[in-house]
Amino acid sequence: MTEAPAEFGLIARHFRPLAGPGALDLLDDAALLLPPPGRELVLTVDAMVEGVHFLPDDPADLVGRKLLRVNLSDLAAKGAVPLGYLMTVSARRDTPESWFAAFAAGLAQDQLTFGIKLLGGDTTSTPGPLSLSLTALGHVAPGAMVRRAGAQPGDGIWVTGTIGAGALGLRALRGDLPDPGGTLAARYRLPEPRLGLARPELVRACMDVSDGLVQDLGHLCRAAGLGAAIEADLLPCPPVGPEWFETCITGGDDYELLFAVAPERCAALVAAAASLRIAVTRIGAFHRGEGVRVLDASGATLPLRRGGWSHF
Amino acid sequence: MTEAPAEFGLIARHFRPLAGPGALDLLDDAALLLPPPGRELVLTVDAMVEGVHFLPDDPADLVGRKLLRVNLSDLAAKGAVPLGYLMTVSARRDTPESWFAAFAAGLAQDQLTFGIKLLGGDTTSTPGPLSLSLTALGHVAPGAMVRRAGAQPGDGIWVTGTIGAGALGLRALRGDLPDPGGTLAARYRLPEPRLGLARPELVRACMDVSDGLVQDLGHLCRAAGLGAAIEADLLPCPPVGPEWFETCITGGDDYELLFAVAPERCAALVAAAASLRIAVTRIGAFHRGEGVRVLDASGATLPLRRGGWSHF
Repeated sequence: MTEAPAEFGLIARHFRPLAGPGALDLLDDAALLLPPPGRELVLTVDAMVEGVHFLPDDPADLVGRKLLRVNLSDLAAKGAVPLGYLMTVSARRDTPESWFAAFAAGLAQDQLTFGIKLLGGDTTSTPGPLSLSLTALGHVAPGAMVRRAGAQPGDGIWVTGTIGAGALGLRALRGDLPDPGGTLAARYRLPEPRLGLARPELVRACMDVSDGLVQDLGHLCRAAGLGAAIEADLLPCPPVGPEWFETCITGGDDYELLFAVAPERCAALVAAAASLRIAVTRIGAFHRGEGVRVLDASGATLPLRRGGWSHF
Repeated sequence: MTEAPAEFGLIARHFRPLAGPGALDLLDDAALLLPPPGRELVLTVDAMVEGVHFLPDDPADLVGRKLLRVNLSDLAAKGAVPLGYLMTVSARRDTPESWFAAFAAGLAQDQLTFGIKLLGGDTTSTPGPLSLSLTALGHVAPGAMVRRAGAQPGDGIWVTGTIGAGALGLRALRGDLPDPGGTLAARYRLPEPRLGLARPELVRACMDVSDGLVQDLGHLCRAAGLGAAIEADLLPCPPVGPEWFETCITGGDDYELLFAVAPERCAALVAAAASLRIAVTRIGAFHRGEGVRVLDASGATLPLRRGGWSHF
């Protein structure tokens, strides 16, 4: 009884190298974290299921990096500095060790990129699809977390990066549209957390776009008690045909920031984004009222068949 | 676009009533937590998969309570005071709303019992078995977290409650042994977190028994660089036949505390346990050396076929 069983070897070989100081080498029941003095903690969790959030043949390193990045994107939207993460991995018993090795290598790479470490986790078997969850911790100055609520009438509606590339990437991987060079697929598999931009002195409200621009903008509107109008011609969608426009704005998987900027903060926002090398685009404005409208070049409201992604 | 889709209604109806102050009504990307000043945070996460950690026909309220309790058991083992939790639920699209209602009702009941609230979560669909994860946060005085490491030669090995009831309960639910009154099944479905006992002035090392007593005692031994001998006659196993003894000590799912007590702390430990109305039993002692031995009444080492539960 001096040998630990296979599960612990797996953890030791692949996950222990990811562990930070408070993780106690993943050899205890829990992790220990001394919160930065005088800071508030920001906590977020996302689950990812094979066949729902990623494809069965997605490379394991990218699955690990996406799992981390979708949560870092939530921290980014709240203006939080990433601190660490806990993770669960439920995998079939016949999952090859090489999958765990590649998954952990992807996480290791992004830990370096984003300066965080693993704090703890749980590895279990499942008879079903690979099921992952990740809880990310970040910190902000007291009262400085950027909320979904807070947009004011007349505030500009802004987004980072492109809108629709993730959803198009999924369609491309399914063979529904061409993707020379694989740039769309790459965006589906590897979102880019936009850390550092959502500061309370620059943005009045922010969230990340995960369920589709139109639906997520509806959340910002309801939180503020406002309506929103966005202009189709302003949207930073990938250069695909108009038949893909609705997919771009309702498809989800963007993990870009969507935020409200007061007109007088516009120049400061653009300067901050430039210094972070993050592309930002003003796509419309909030107004009194309710609902999200997408306007064409003539100012007419475009009809949309569906609002966004729902799991149920 | 003023209506949020079905997923958000489900969350609003069943999970929002569970939410604490920092959860922002589950309407934001993240939760906000002001850590208790001067305290260290203790973090733990466990995944539970239908068919692996609970049975498909286990009542949903008990599934919710078990999910919370297995994590509270980890906090209990570290001497932490529970603070809050985040959760993911990945369920099939045809999961009836009544399942979510009962699951949340179970959590609500245990939130009252243990004085904690939901901080955040993620609800997704899955084509596979119900997959759950829960991240629990607790706090301790600086340096006061009880570790797995720390046992000294001559320390008593103690456990709370009974050992084996969880594993026997699973076998009973499968029809392998009788369970009049269903007490064994109840222990499998609803563990009892032993909060308040594992204080650093009483215990030198502690963990909770989830993968089987023998295997988990091996963890305490390796962490301390010691061996352990436990006496079969001292073990607080349920009154079943000797053919079930090995199941009791290797089967897992106990969620009882396993800990090291210095001989001079024995009386204080017993008094503290009595005041908490927690049964405690001394089952053996740590010694210089390595490995875990189970001794019969004559002092001979009992052979064991398997050590404990491994997922891989």
